[in-house]
Amino acid sequence: MPQPPVPESTQAPPVPRPRVLIIGGGFAGLNAARGLAHLPVDVTLIDRSNHHTFQPLLYQVALAVLSPADIAQPIRTILRDQPNTAVLMDEVIAIGIIARSVTCASGATLAYDYLILATGATHSYFGRDDWEPLAPGLKTIEDATEIRRRVLLAFELAERQMVEQGTHPPLNFVVIGGGPTGVELAGAIADITRLYMHRDFRHIDPTKSRIFLLEGSPRVLAAYPEDLSAKAEASLTHLGVEVHTATQVTSLGPGWVEATHGGSTTRIEAVVTLWAAGVQASPLGKLLASALNTVQLDKRGAVFVDDYLNPPGLPNVFITGDLAHFEQDGHQVPGVAQPAMQMGTHAARIIAADLKGKPRPKFRYFDKGDMATIGRMSAVAKVEWPFKAHLGGFPAWITWITVHIFFLIGFRNRLAVLASWVWTYFMFSRGARLITGDQHLPGWPEKSRPSSPPPS
Amino acid sequence: MPQPPVPESTQAPPVPRPRVLIIGGGFAGLNAARGLAHLPVDVTLIDRSNHHTFQPLLYQVALAVLSPADIAQPIRTILRDQPNTAVLMDEVIAIGIIARSVTCASGATLAYDYLILATGATHSYFGRDDWEPLAPGLKTIEDATEIRRRVLLAFELAERQMVEQGTHPPLNFVVIGGGPTGVELAGAIADITRLYMHRDFRHIDPTKSRIFLLEGSPRVLAAYPEDLSAKAEASLTHLGVEVHTATQVTSLGPGWVEATHGGSTTRIEAVVTLWAAGVQASPLGKLLASALNTVQLDKRGAVFVDDYLNPPGLPNVFITGDLAHFEQDGHQVPGVAQPAMQMGTHAARIIAADLKGKPRPKFRYFDKGDMATIGRMSAVAKVEWPFKAHLGGFPAWITWITVHIFFLIGFRNRLAVLASWVWTYFMFSRGARLITGDQHLPGWPEKSRPSSPPPS
Repeated sequence: MPQPPVPESTQAPPVPRPRVLIIGGGFAGLNAARGLAHLPVDVTLIDRSNHHTFQPLLYQVALAVLSPADIAQPIRTILRDQPNTAVLMDEVIAIGIIARSVTCASGATLAYDYLILATGATHSYFGRDDWEPLAPGLKTIEDATEIRRRVLLAFELAERQMVEQGTHPPLNFVVIGGGPTGVELAGAIADITRLYMHRDFRHIDPTKSRIFLLEGSPRVLAAYPEDLSAKAEASLTHLGVEVHTATQVTSLGPGWVEATHGGSTTRIEAVVTLWAAGVQASPLGKLLASALNTVQLDKRGAVFVDDYLNPPGLPNVFITGDLAHFEQDGHQVPGVAQPAMQMGTHAARIIAADLKGKPRPKFRYFDKGDMATIGRMSAVAKVEWPFKAHLGGFPAWITWITVHIFFLIGFRNRLAVLASWVWTYFMFSRGARLITGDQHLPGWPEKSRPSSPPPS
Repeated sequence: MPQPPVPESTQAPPVPRPRVLIIGGGFAGLNAARGLAHLPVDVTLIDRSNHHTFQPLLYQVALAVLSPADIAQPIRTILRDQPNTAVLMDEVIAIGIIARSVTCASGATLAYDYLILATGATHSYFGRDDWEPLAPGLKTIEDATEIRRRVLLAFELAERQMVEQGTHPPLNFVVIGGGPTGVELAGAIADITRLYMHRDFRHIDPTKSRIFLLEGSPRVLAAYPEDLSAKAEASLTHLGVEVHTATQVTSLGPGWVEATHGGSTTRIEAVVTLWAAGVQASPLGKLLASALNTVQLDKRGAVFVDDYLNPPGLPNVFITGDLAHFEQDGHQVPGVAQPAMQMGTHAARIIAADLKGKPRPKFRYFDKGDMATIGRMSAVAKVEWPFKAHLGGFPAWITWITVHIFFLIGFRNRLAVLASWVWTYFMFSRGARLITGDQHLPGWPEKSRPSSPPPS
């Protein structure tokens, strides 16, 4: 018997699902997306790059311990098992607050019901953007391979020049900025010159390299407790890094850095100069502020947000990660991975509360601590949870390695990174010592020889 | 009691050790250096790049299975335990046959007693060098990451354009040349589109990609026996590759390739075009021929050598690897890894014989066979040793994987590569899917939209 047709009225009309737009695939954006996985929303995550980068290990790519793919994964692969989430490689160039849409560089316009901004921070050269090609910073995979290229190339050019002229410029490496990135870079350069390179060269002595760490404030790791700053400085000095605190860089050029300390100015020859001195929030903060004058920015361009991660008057716009200026107990929450992850997750939690018609939960940063490595087997760690402690040296390093392996995204990468570390630390051999790209260093003395003789 | 001073005459005067100069750190150069490790000679190996590249696996870097560092190692690290060997990153621009010296781009001039040329081969565009940016070839790590960038970017741009315009150009990938490299590239692209990408995109269907393999001669793998060519073509077709033999490329441009088959011309839209059609020997052959008119080159620019790997009249100059044209039993020895390794080792053996005043041994290529993979779990292998066989499909693939793991340089790399393969083959996930560099593809339709609206 033929079935009677189902009357149309019994079929529920399709309910429009709220559209959530996440801009940025860093720790904040990725955690927001994951928090939304099982909600009845349509999520689109937009990032300029196709991959999420595990930034805390970026310095190990820059110093040839790890490969780029060890710490970076395609965002769409990370999120591929979330059917409600699409990923788009594009760049947001305009935000329409009233139209509730964003416009991308490609021309695409995407409408949203909720907007989560998570575009992070980038280097700041304090208005001297012309310094960037001379002293690259470390934020992206491309930055890391560029730093790797420069550091490794310096030794090759020195060896080459020894063969040609019997002399070479001093192998001075200058790291500007004594925060966690600067400390980690300086320690890793000391390692590579002292422990990994010395057996490989016949004409130069890589252990004679000098590493300078220049910090404007009176101590390195200024955001850490004073005892840990002291431990860090001692560890760095032990590795051979020349730490200069209360030292301001006044000028730099190809092959040199000029800095003042207590009124006297010194010029340091530098084959490689690296920048770890300042960060500024992504320009999307400015874009938002120019669209709505109730949005306020701090001096780094980060957006002031309330307890719900909203700028004033914009309850459907969340600012997360390094782009957010969030104050807790009178202090700004720092621009590191943990608060970013927690903010991303919290934005998703607020959207979930909205969907259930429940009151929105307030954000509160739960600080488990912070840490930085100093070379091969040393670190400093301010542990806040599950117990409180200040650790230095090897115990801090073991803590660091455990936490970082645990938080690395993707099982394969964890194994690959662990294997690389074991190999690096026990065999004194760095696996990723590749120079790719061109073979020039800013300021390296170019040969002033007559052109080569014709073939005889 | 004070010891009497040793009379000077009892100290042997320093014997000048023969200087051996090796140009090129590929399979031939590296094996030559290793063969000289325990001889009383001073060896200098010069290469433009700081790393040795394991070329047979380069296509796996291009298709995001392996990381560059998995198949490349610093030459100086490989040779660091040979005290008689120095490595120099430089480029030879002139050879002085009479002066017995070479001149480098840096200006350095190095004298030699023995010269081993091992600079290999590069792509040939048959006089159409303007095609190179449109259709990159695969010889270096940089080439591989550029191909990876283009292939991965094509999918991202298509997804982006689907969101923006609801349509995208057909995802056609064209591989020009059906030799081992072309076959491996085409198979690997088929894999990535069919097996690895389809779960990651929401708006496009990567499995709808078309892969074209264009080969001018009547069959793919023309250097292999006919039954293996047929097996390879069947495997490729099974993977979804559209194989066009007896098809000559007549022209190509940004986004398209034009080819003729039996007199009729077809134009194929192509988001990515890859070049695997021709190789030519390194320009050092030409440099040598212009220095000495008894040196003869074949049509690819390789140097004709005698049974001792010398060009006529130059017993202290050895030509090895792809730069050498060596005939055995009426056939030219092919330009692949095995003969290159054997030639490098043999050059060192001849120098050893000279040092002992023994007669020079003749070179004879010992052919163990040849093989090429076709996608995920298939290959063709012509085995010559330890038994003779023609293998196809899975057995050939198992043979391939065993041999390649065995020959990979460096214990760490072998482990890393094995881990990546296991992960890739069993988890259907590619670890190294990074897009780095810019985000343009030649010929991709640029947006013709009005500029974006100002922020509202």
